[in-house]
Amino acid sequence: MTLRLAVLGAGAVGGSVLDLAGEYGHEVVAFADSSSSVSDPTGLDPQTVHDRKEREGVVGDDDPEALFDTDYDVLVEATPTTLGDAEPGFSHVERALADDRHVVLANKGPVAERYADLRALEAESEGRVQFEATVGGAIPVLSTISDLGADHVTAARGVLNGTANFILSRMAAEGLDYEHVLAEAQDLGVAEADPSFDVDGIDAALKFVILANVLSDGEAEYRLNDAEVEGIRNVPGTALDLAAEDGRTVRLIGEATSDGVRVAPRLVPQGAALAVTGTQNIVQLETEHAGQLNVSGRGAGGPETATAVLSDVSRLE
Amino acid sequence: MTLRLAVLGAGAVGGSVLDLAGEYGHEVVAFADSSSSVSDPTGLDPQTVHDRKEREGVVGDDDPEALFDTDYDVLVEATPTTLGDAEPGFSHVERALADDRHVVLANKGPVAERYADLRALEAESEGRVQFEATVGGAIPVLSTISDLGADHVTAARGVLNGTANFILSRMAAEGLDYEHVLAEAQDLGVAEADPSFDVDGIDAALKFVILANVLSDGEAEYRLNDAEVEGIRNVPGTALDLAAEDGRTVRLIGEATSDGVRVAPRLVPQGAALAVTGTQNIVQLETEHAGQLNVSGRGAGGPETATAVLSDVSRLE
Repeated sequence: MTLRLAVLGAGAVGGSVLDLAGEYGHEVVAFADSSSSVSDPTGLDPQTVHDRKEREGVVGDDDPEALFDTDYDVLVEATPTTLGDAEPGFSHVERALADDRHVVLANKGPVAERYADLRALEAESEGRVQFEATVGGAIPVLSTISDLGADHVTAARGVLNGTANFILSRMAAEGLDYEHVLAEAQDLGVAEADPSFDVDGIDAALKFVILANVLSDGEAEYRLNDAEVEGIRNVPGTALDLAAEDGRTVRLIGEATSDGVRVAPRLVPQGAALAVTGTQNIVQLETEHAGQLNVSGRGAGGPETATAVLSDVSRLE
Repeated sequence: MTLRLAVLGAGAVGGSVLDLAGEYGHEVVAFADSSSSVSDPTGLDPQTVHDRKEREGVVGDDDPEALFDTDYDVLVEATPTTLGDAEPGFSHVERALADDRHVVLANKGPVAERYADLRALEAESEGRVQFEATVGGAIPVLSTISDLGADHVTAARGVLNGTANFILSRMAAEGLDYEHVLAEAQDLGVAEADPSFDVDGIDAALKFVILANVLSDGEAEYRLNDAEVEGIRNVPGTALDLAAEDGRTVRLIGEATSDGVRVAPRLVPQGAALAVTGTQNIVQLETEHAGQLNVSGRGAGGPETATAVLSDVSRLE
């Protein structure tokens, strides 16, 4: 069944959803960036939209809010993640659910910071909320937990920030210090000009908070403030040298259980599943009856995350 | 929704489905081994069934076929995998589908050897066929392909036989030869008295044939005879020593694409994702838009495989 998507957010993820929706049998009927929107009930042509955005800096002539007045089935919320009240993302979700539309989130804010509010709104709506893309891009983390049943998964552990992992991998492989590798990562576009969201562990913590919310299955609610978070700024190159002498290395490891969330640099054996390199991500699920299941891959990127969004859309058919 | 299961096959998998169905919110109303069956419309007590099987060698007083006359929703076909016409498993599936019941397979035969026949029967029935458990136990291989869409996955590659992998891992780690490690694996219960199904690559090939059938999505049909298969009997210990000197090791690697199936011992880098150790399994999916996704874990075992069966059952709700 073809579902009509309204995509809010014109960054890498929103742009890739626009490009790839057709391949998944869906169509984008409305698309908005932070200052404008465009719609077409017969489906937007991706190239036309991208061209206008590049040429004029806007995607269309309408206000962004006009997107909600179009005839769509699924809101794809791909605006930047915000903390605290998770606005304006949360209000976007609220409006779509109030109109009995489905919501697929790439924005982590509403799931990490206002999970109970989100589930309460969903319960009042004909629409459903999906958010696989918020945890590790296309890596099948939430779908696997859903298949196993959240009550049969006792913990989720792993590496869910590619930037921090790239920096730690390079420090270990090249014997370089944090500042040097960070500058290199910024040159390569792997780290942002302000890298604090990644290197201070906030981004990873948000994802593990989402996992804790899913694993606790409504029995408890977690927010970023509930997580114990330590980043990688203070990991000295000498710590990696010492670890290497012992056959180990350091990774920014997160853990979510129904008891809460911790993210911190940890020693892991070299060659262990958790010692993924570069921008790879991995999640290990501890299950009651099926041992440990590992899922890994690229945890970010436009087409990768759009793939997760579109898989979520197909689950709504 | 509680689904009523009829479980055919009283080995490790069938027995674990009987034990765990209640935890997943379902109930087993009929259970059969090769010579008898027992049923209870209010749900069987697992321990009573196991006790009788142990004490008397049968599970009940009825013929195995009586299972089909009970009031069930889902047939769980967990009899041993057979090649060629995949009988008697195929006829069991045929009968359930003819009665418009769902089928969940742990038996690889019907999916690997008669995929087109199976899909044709499914198309005529109100029942659906699920078979996650046939490929890597609880490792979410088929569900991930389904989420991505089979047409967006270009290849599946990996290690899907724990016995062969255990033997190769031990040969490499201990510098022992094939016959020695095989005897050890047999003592540990990791290898069967007749290990040919595992060490000749047949079991892995069946799983990659199933993957090829899923990836080709009805455009082609594969059977075991279409696969190029080479096992591990002739891998000399010296080959592993030579590989190790080069930073590599040997694993029994299978590959499925829409062009077919190959299984053979291959050199892989030590520490690479494919170089799983012991009885671990791994599948790497090459995707069009989301890079390479890896899923790994224990690929066999009663509770592990029963977990996959029960996840499939829940998909039928």
